[in-house]
Amino acid sequence: MTPARAKELSDRLLAGDLRALARLITLVENHEPGVELALARIFPHTGNAHLIGITGPPGAGKSTLTDKLIQAARKEGKKVGILCVDPSSPFSGGAILGDRIRMQEHAADSKVFIRSIGTRGGHGGLSRSTQETAMLLDAFGFDLVILETAGVGQTELGILEVAQTIMVVLVPESGDDIQMMKAGILEIADVLTVNKCDRPASDHVVKELRAMLEIGMGADGTWSIPVLKTIAESGSGVGEVFIAIKEHYAFLQRSGTLQLKNRGFARTAVMNIIRDVASERASEALATKSGMALLDDVASRKLDPFKAAQKLFR
Amino acid sequence: MTPARAKELSDRLLAGDLRALARLITLVENHEPGVELALARIFPHTGNAHLIGITGPPGAGKSTLTDKLIQAARKEGKKVGILCVDPSSPFSGGAILGDRIRMQEHAADSKVFIRSIGTRGGHGGLSRSTQETAMLLDAFGFDLVILETAGVGQTELGILEVAQTIMVVLVPESGDDIQMMKAGILEIADVLTVNKCDRPASDHVVKELRAMLEIGMGADGTWSIPVLKTIAESGSGVGEVFIAIKEHYAFLQRSGTLQLKNRGFARTAVMNIIRDVASERASEALATKSGMALLDDVASRKLDPFKAAQKLFR
Repeated sequence: MTPARAKELSDRLLAGDLRALARLITLVENHEPGVELALARIFPHTGNAHLIGITGPPGAGKSTLTDKLIQAARKEGKKVGILCVDPSSPFSGGAILGDRIRMQEHAADSKVFIRSIGTRGGHGGLSRSTQETAMLLDAFGFDLVILETAGVGQTELGILEVAQTIMVVLVPESGDDIQMMKAGILEIADVLTVNKCDRPASDHVVKELRAMLEIGMGADGTWSIPVLKTIAESGSGVGEVFIAIKEHYAFLQRSGTLQLKNRGFARTAVMNIIRDVASERASEALATKSGMALLDDVASRKLDPFKAAQKLFR
Repeated sequence: MTPARAKELSDRLLAGDLRALARLITLVENHEPGVELALARIFPHTGNAHLIGITGPPGAGKSTLTDKLIQAARKEGKKVGILCVDPSSPFSGGAILGDRIRMQEHAADSKVFIRSIGTRGGHGGLSRSTQETAMLLDAFGFDLVILETAGVGQTELGILEVAQTIMVVLVPESGDDIQMMKAGILEIADVLTVNKCDRPASDHVVKELRAMLEIGMGADGTWSIPVLKTIAESGSGVGEVFIAIKEHYAFLQRSGTLQLKNRGFARTAVMNIIRDVASERASEALATKSGMALLDDVASRKLDPFKAAQKLFR
């Protein structure tokens, strides 16, 4: 992408052009060379959106809940950008796609923007493109940016590097796995909801989660993680979830935690860029004649990869 | 880890000490500083094992099949190392653990070594620790090194960077998803098996897969991907799978593809090291006073992350 094109697209995005936003997201997702010029231009206009991550096991009803949260936010006149982060496994595809189509009923509403991005490309590619897409939505002027993941492997850990408030959605059946999930959930969640709460065992699971979370909670004015009950299909409990999410944002602001988080995100962004630049340079060096000779020596075990990397660095 | 300790552990590994092997795998998994000295020492002794990746959707019976493949390999007097790559999701844990315990019936056999490694640590951490653990097993003298993954997201793509032969395990029910998985499977698989083939629809799925693969196949002497039928529980078809895996290795050797793959693995190893070294240096630089000032400027949107990365590089 030429610098002129980067300037044009970023100016159009900042002026509220949805097509420029969509185009830039695609360019970010494709790691298009030169897109960083556009990102650098829009960056001063970021920092206003509340970045919300939603994760949980497949089938927990994350998309239906997101749907209802969008409605709640729209009633308050808030603009909402949704980014569905798709783990792109050949064995897990589909679910998010279907749910996304369901959410498209908001497509007629110009204050709601829904987009999914894949995770192919490996090595922190997801973290970087998720963060950069969130920046685009933030700069565009969405009040809320919701990042929804299918919650498999490193994907849900990736949203930790982007979201300010993380909501974990469980179902009553998750109770069986709670001991196993304990560590993960306690680390990740700012707001917990047990969805499909009309099913049996939901009260028990909610109680168990609350007991678990109390143990982990300090009396030092830190956030106490609410465990809520929802039936997303009917909308029951969604109001409380929305309030909890907003309260968490207010907590982040008044406690100074938001600043710490933003500093952490800044660190992630810089680290991702440095890692990518190093990769690009190494890739170029390995494509030269001497780089290829190094690889041949490693492949034939004449040289170990550590010494090869050292030689390449020189 | 001190250089003396690295030397000691690698010498013991090369002398066939299982405890040294186990210890080094743990050190690799923990990204222990200094472990690269041990890896550099054992590296010249790698390149002899056949590295086999096994992936597929959860519940396809990968571990049972692996179990039976171990038995088949042991009958031929081959030593087998198994590495279970666990995606470590708070929402997916457990399955591999249970299967691993089942496989432990081989624990009494000193020519079989089973180990699992997690994927926490992000950013290519899995790729690097999987590859380095495979190196350790290879240098130890295992004839076959089997890498089993739960097949979620980037995990199964990660084994592409390590395994020479990739077997994808499906079940008859996977038929519904075949169109969706098509691209992924055709890219990944060297050997395909439809497991639990006593279930209905299995013939149809096998036929469909074969038809799909024929379209993608060239007449240029490339490998034609076999689609096999197994019932891992009873052992039915496992012999054919084992033969197909060995035939693929023979194909790799005679076609020169093995050399190309080894070159690709060398590239991955060098790239992973360079990326990690760059990360470490960036991390150190960001921990200095001027580095922290840069992060503050990014967090407050005074400086964009691209310029911050440039400043840090200088």
